[in-house]
Amino acid sequence: MKVTILGNNSALPAFGRHPTSQVVTVYGETILVDCGEGTQAQMQRYGIRWRNMHHLFISHLHGDHYFGLPGLLTSMSLLGRTSPLFLYGPAALKPIIQEILRVAATTLSYPLNFYPLPSTPDVLVDNAYFSLTSFPVRHRIDCWGLLVKEKTRGRKLLADKCRELGIPSTSFERIKAGEDYVLPSGERLPNSLLTIDGPKGRAYAYCADTVYTESFLDVIHGADTIYHECTYLEEDKEKAGLRFHSTASQAAQIALKAGSKRLLLGHFSSKYKDLDPFREEACAVFPESQIAEEGMTYEV
Amino acid sequence: MKVTILGNNSALPAFGRHPTSQVVTVYGETILVDCGEGTQAQMQRYGIRWRNMHHLFISHLHGDHYFGLPGLLTSMSLLGRTSPLFLYGPAALKPIIQEILRVAATTLSYPLNFYPLPSTPDVLVDNAYFSLTSFPVRHRIDCWGLLVKEKTRGRKLLADKCRELGIPSTSFERIKAGEDYVLPSGERLPNSLLTIDGPKGRAYAYCADTVYTESFLDVIHGADTIYHECTYLEEDKEKAGLRFHSTASQAAQIALKAGSKRLLLGHFSSKYKDLDPFREEACAVFPESQIAEEGMTYEV
Repeated sequence: MKVTILGNNSALPAFGRHPTSQVVTVYGETILVDCGEGTQAQMQRYGIRWRNMHHLFISHLHGDHYFGLPGLLTSMSLLGRTSPLFLYGPAALKPIIQEILRVAATTLSYPLNFYPLPSTPDVLVDNAYFSLTSFPVRHRIDCWGLLVKEKTRGRKLLADKCRELGIPSTSFERIKAGEDYVLPSGERLPNSLLTIDGPKGRAYAYCADTVYTESFLDVIHGADTIYHECTYLEEDKEKAGLRFHSTASQAAQIALKAGSKRLLLGHFSSKYKDLDPFREEACAVFPESQIAEEGMTYEV
Repeated sequence: MKVTILGNNSALPAFGRHPTSQVVTVYGETILVDCGEGTQAQMQRYGIRWRNMHHLFISHLHGDHYFGLPGLLTSMSLLGRTSPLFLYGPAALKPIIQEILRVAATTLSYPLNFYPLPSTPDVLVDNAYFSLTSFPVRHRIDCWGLLVKEKTRGRKLLADKCRELGIPSTSFERIKAGEDYVLPSGERLPNSLLTIDGPKGRAYAYCADTVYTESFLDVIHGADTIYHECTYLEEDKEKAGLRFHSTASQAAQIALKAGSKRLLLGHFSSKYKDLDPFREEACAVFPESQIAEEGMTYEV
């Protein structure tokens, strides 16, 4: 599972940085997380293809998180997309999109399925490959975070041991799927003797625009990588609180308390040209902190 | 009067080209004409300041002409704009903007005055420096063009003649404003003896997305510079007609029939990488045709 950053800035474009957008790729599927103005151009720039994209998540209705959505939806239609799209966002997003399409006399070339985000943590998608769980965060308007969980890839086969026991390789797939093996003698070899736990599915938590709050710690606990907004530095802690944003130090505290392995920092205020102080401030609390740089792809 | 091109492409961003937007500057005032996605970033890139901008014109509600508007309106508010803004566009634009602001719990820092475009040619603005006149064109949905007319700068003083006649330079301003001059002898020198017509005010006609039509020729007749869309080349004339767009040759015919001095070509389909054929095709009909290049500023 990987995450590619398309925009790491807050509302005002500055220093070449773009408003919030990122894509999570898991088992070949591309999940779009927020869609600030210019996202379709950023997708072109970094080679992100929408053909593998079926799930779009909009955290909240401040423009820097969704003003790129109408353009992206329209472009995919002009390019003849046919496969369905699933859009998860605040309930008020649906009539806005509908009205924008209506006044343009546009009928999309593909089915667009909208799901309003619920007020408590909820599983949006749960398939064989991944699950998506939304959870409320605390912002000036209703806002949600997203947890992307990769599914495990089944049991890991102890191939050498199986061969020693005389099991033919044609039976390996079924053993990996969890079955026991019965020898010609009638003896049953339990699956636990032939396999061990497969690699653990990884988890990525996107903690969108939020003031410091531990209210969703239980949902994101154990996530391998956490993205947490940090619009300001600790010197602007009071302003951050008033505007329902966080500081780099606060983001790091969340990552620490969530037992995460890595923190990605983003949503920087346009007043900061140099982002190094964000990394330094966060690393003092949680050493595995780094700037979510535009165009960069991170292994979760 | 000048026009700066911020975007010259049609709906799908391609080859680094942007959706439609341009600014007309006249007597220090900046008039924004259409606002495709990414316009605020293009304004930053080309040093267009919104502090001198009070009039915004949206030709129609296809996204490539206004998806950058919500972001621009919001950014100006975040940056503390206080001077009023006058927005001219299709009537359905107003509730969309209102709803986008409402769901973001945003109150703009400046007054936003909206004027729905009328169904016949109409003067939107008429002040001492310029006038703005909208006129319907023919597109798949309701769409308008815009005529920007610079006012003349008053009479041109025949300074040498005035000095010969013994008129003191302290009276020059009043003579330029149209007054006669009375000599100490009591003899009245008529203004027509002391001045000639000032430079003629120039006119710029923006003929937004439209199929070939002569319906607005009378409105734009005599405009010094005409911008006319040409989404396609003549080889795609049929497609152009079906989609309510024009070809380069058709754009040139309009410029020719309007008695214009120059034609700027824009709104190119994303299928064309090389734009030279557009210029060549148009020049065969109207030699003073050129590509409206992004980032370029043209004297009207």
